[in-house]
Amino acid sequence: MTSPPPGMVTVEEALRIVLGAADRLPSVRVPLLDSLGLVLAEDIRASDPLPPYRASVKDGYAVLSSDGPGIYPVIAESRAGNDGIDVVVTPGTVAYVTTGGPIPDGADSVVQIEDTEQVVATSNGLKNVKILVQVPRGLDIRDVGCDIAKGTTVLKSGEQIGNPEIGLLATVGVTMVKVYPQPMVGVLSTGDELVEPATQTLGRGQIRDSNGPMLLAAAIQQHCKILDLGIVPDNEESLDRVLDAAFDSGIDILLTSGGVSMGDRDFVKPNLAKRGTIYFEKVFMKPGKPLTFAQITVNPKEGEKAKSILAFGLPGNPVSCAVCFHLFSVPAIRQLSGWSNHQLQRVHARITKPIKTDPNRPEYHRAVVRWVLNDGSGSPGFVAESTGYQTSSRLLSMKSANALLELPKSGQIHPSGTILQALLISDIRKFPLSTTADGTSISPNNEHA
Amino acid sequence: MTSPPPGMVTVEEALRIVLGAADRLPSVRVPLLDSLGLVLAEDIRASDPLPPYRASVKDGYAVLSSDGPGIYPVIAESRAGNDGIDVVVTPGTVAYVTTGGPIPDGADSVVQIEDTEQVVATSNGLKNVKILVQVPRGLDIRDVGCDIAKGTTVLKSGEQIGNPEIGLLATVGVTMVKVYPQPMVGVLSTGDELVEPATQTLGRGQIRDSNGPMLLAAAIQQHCKILDLGIVPDNEESLDRVLDAAFDSGIDILLTSGGVSMGDRDFVKPNLAKRGTIYFEKVFMKPGKPLTFAQITVNPKEGEKAKSILAFGLPGNPVSCAVCFHLFSVPAIRQLSGWSNHQLQRVHARITKPIKTDPNRPEYHRAVVRWVLNDGSGSPGFVAESTGYQTSSRLLSMKSANALLELPKSGQIHPSGTILQALLISDIRKFPLSTTADGTSISPNNEHA
Ligand SMILES: [Mg+2]
Ligand SMILES: [Mg+2]
Repeated sequence: MTSPPPGMVTVEEALRIVLGAADRLPSVRVPLLDSLGLVLAEDIRASDPLPPYRASVKDGYAVLSSDGPGIYPVIAESRAGNDGIDVVVTPGTVAYVTTGGPIPDGADSVVQIEDTEQVVATSNGLKNVKILVQVPRGLDIRDVGCDIAKGTTVLKSGEQIGNPEIGLLATVGVTMVKVYPQPMVGVLSTGDELVEPATQTLGRGQIRDSNGPMLLAAAIQQHCKILDLGIVPDNEESLDRVLDAAFDSGIDILLTSGGVSMGDRDFVKPNLAKRGTIYFEKVFMKPGKPLTFAQITVNPKEGEKAKSILAFGLPGNPVSCAVCFHLFSVPAIRQLSGWSNHQLQRVHARITKPIKTDPNRPEYHRAVVRWVLNDGSGSPGFVAESTGYQTSSRLLSMKSANALLELPKSGQIHPSGTILQALLISDIRKFPLSTTADGTSISPNNEHA
Repeated sequence: MTSPPPGMVTVEEALRIVLGAADRLPSVRVPLLDSLGLVLAEDIRASDPLPPYRASVKDGYAVLSSDGPGIYPVIAESRAGNDGIDVVVTPGTVAYVTTGGPIPDGADSVVQIEDTEQVVATSNGLKNVKILVQVPRGLDIRDVGCDIAKGTTVLKSGEQIGNPEIGLLATVGVTMVKVYPQPMVGVLSTGDELVEPATQTLGRGQIRDSNGPMLLAAAIQQHCKILDLGIVPDNEESLDRVLDAAFDSGIDILLTSGGVSMGDRDFVKPNLAKRGTIYFEKVFMKPGKPLTFAQITVNPKEGEKAKSILAFGLPGNPVSCAVCFHLFSVPAIRQLSGWSNHQLQRVHARITKPIKTDPNRPEYHRAVVRWVLNDGSGSPGFVAESTGYQTSSRLLSMKSANALLELPKSGQIHPSGTILQALLISDIRKFPLSTTADGTSISPNNEHA
């Protein structure tokens, strides 16, 4: 780490400051399916064992294993509920059972239906069945609590809720779940040059706002609730009015883009300074240097607690804006959401073409990372391909990018095959078919030796 | 590949059949943000260049580079819109410009504000500025179309829409986006033993339904719309009534769980057979053997086209149910959603403990895969840790699992350190901090040599 020029903080220092200001939101209770993707805020214990009764693993007959093959009367049919509740399977008798159904008392194993034969004859008004095999004691019976013992902690506070966790919550009867809520993110674009995306004909000096929709989408992908604050021109009063409303609306995080450069009408920084504490204004990185981070304390309404809002004054260049969002806003969102690990996932990938590093600033180079059978070393691994020309206004360099390659400043060229660290910024499962470095696809049948 | 026992299909064959029956849904137009996560169904061209005018990269002064250092009158202030539209920067004059704003005609480069000094004196009513440096021609000017040339295809049909793609659509003015829609998935749990998750006190022979909520959550995670069909008992008429309503409701995929074993009241298969074509009933795999797949053609309503619905009769055991969903329903959902690659992402991972394989069936062993600096070979890589006891009723073996290890049948023990193929079933970015195999965490500053 070389120290940054005066007035700038390093990426690591900026992240430390952001996380220092980001507190986990107070927990709330939400209906079961609404908890998907959120972090659990309580331990979950099983108040019943699973299964709560001795349950059959198969469709077949509950028997006494000592009886062995032979023809037996079927004294009960036990599928669910109180089926066979007063029945005792005694030597010389069997009971019909179905998968997941209760095993009547007395029986000690199950003979699956495939190992039996139907017998037409009945005795004492009971059906008979021919048992063809001798089974070991205990076969195909799940004992009470064998999957989940009564009192087991099945989920711990701090764990993230995916689909199996939803199933576990349902199993133990928890349908209102205590979680850390989704942060509410307000998104505002600033700039006299901006017009709505729906504008069909651009006037001179106009461009369509892309940062607003992009940041709203990115916040949705991070499981946030969103508030679209639209576009404000570079005008002190307009900005003030919109920010008054924004800070009053219950947002936890404010994302603005633009208005943080050296222009005479860049009002975002002074406005945030007036409202709260600015922690840094420039980060020693490429792209994204002009990033402002502030904490705003909103005066409490009657009966409420004072609320602290994190404000990111993101750069107006779309790529700088996106990279700063990933590096700093995502960890903050995760911390507010109760994640124990706020860090972006880092992997190592071999580059498939030479990459030149910036001589002055550490760089976050957009790339597509994919898993290949041979990464060039003869073994499976990640390879990374640059998304091309990296200028910070070129949003096409973010297109399809699933990683940011971390390039320490040096001005040197990393040759093809160099292993670099890559921060994952989107789900690598979404990436098109994995291929080897030479373009051969990984076959589903191709088992690794 | 060994051939499966009679009446069963291999996993590969089953997947081939499912994908053969799954057609991409007809495309629809949706508002910009609603297209997030979906697949684009049209090529998107830029009808304007970006930038649409020569734009400044910095806040500063538009100059003629040949003028060099000196004091110059500021003849215009050009920030956006029609600012400076009739102005021509002639030798000996400059214009104030801001980041992203238009460069007046005549100027050929920009001197950033940091390389200038304010001059108090004015001449002819104009402010003056002192230019401190000589800049090369073209510096800090983005030419028309330098980021996106007019007519460029910025996005192609078949590409998935993430947050940068939302930004690109906004940039080119596309706010109603042609996409393949989210499939609608209906979820039904069957079984006399099942009660609602909210049930606080279980009667004898009762368990709470976990498959229903788990499958609804899993379908949401795959970007589907969902229809909760609840629980039906093992009763032919009830099942028929609910399925009538389900197939009439506009669903594209039906997921049932339970009712596909050898029990005398397992009515799912006969009901699907009555309504359409059953393609297979058993798959040669562990867990999940009793999986039914059928295609149902629903009679068209007046003025509509006949609709084909994919029906998955998933096993009742929660783990079998979840594994079958990932292996077969996810690729089907992807194909309906227009993904060009339906396959689950496969990576290779070293196991950290020995794993015994099944002697009879290929197995999908639930595991947590994570990236470590040293996977045991001395290099970075994925390691995989089993989620423990793998019986198909134990939903805890799915908890936190982000991968299914593919274990060909052999009955052998794979020693610790063996490299296995792993199918990723959840986003590896969500996993807690990466650690080395010996538990050391990867530091953000730890750059790989
Ligand atoms: Mg601006
Ligand atoms: Mg059943």
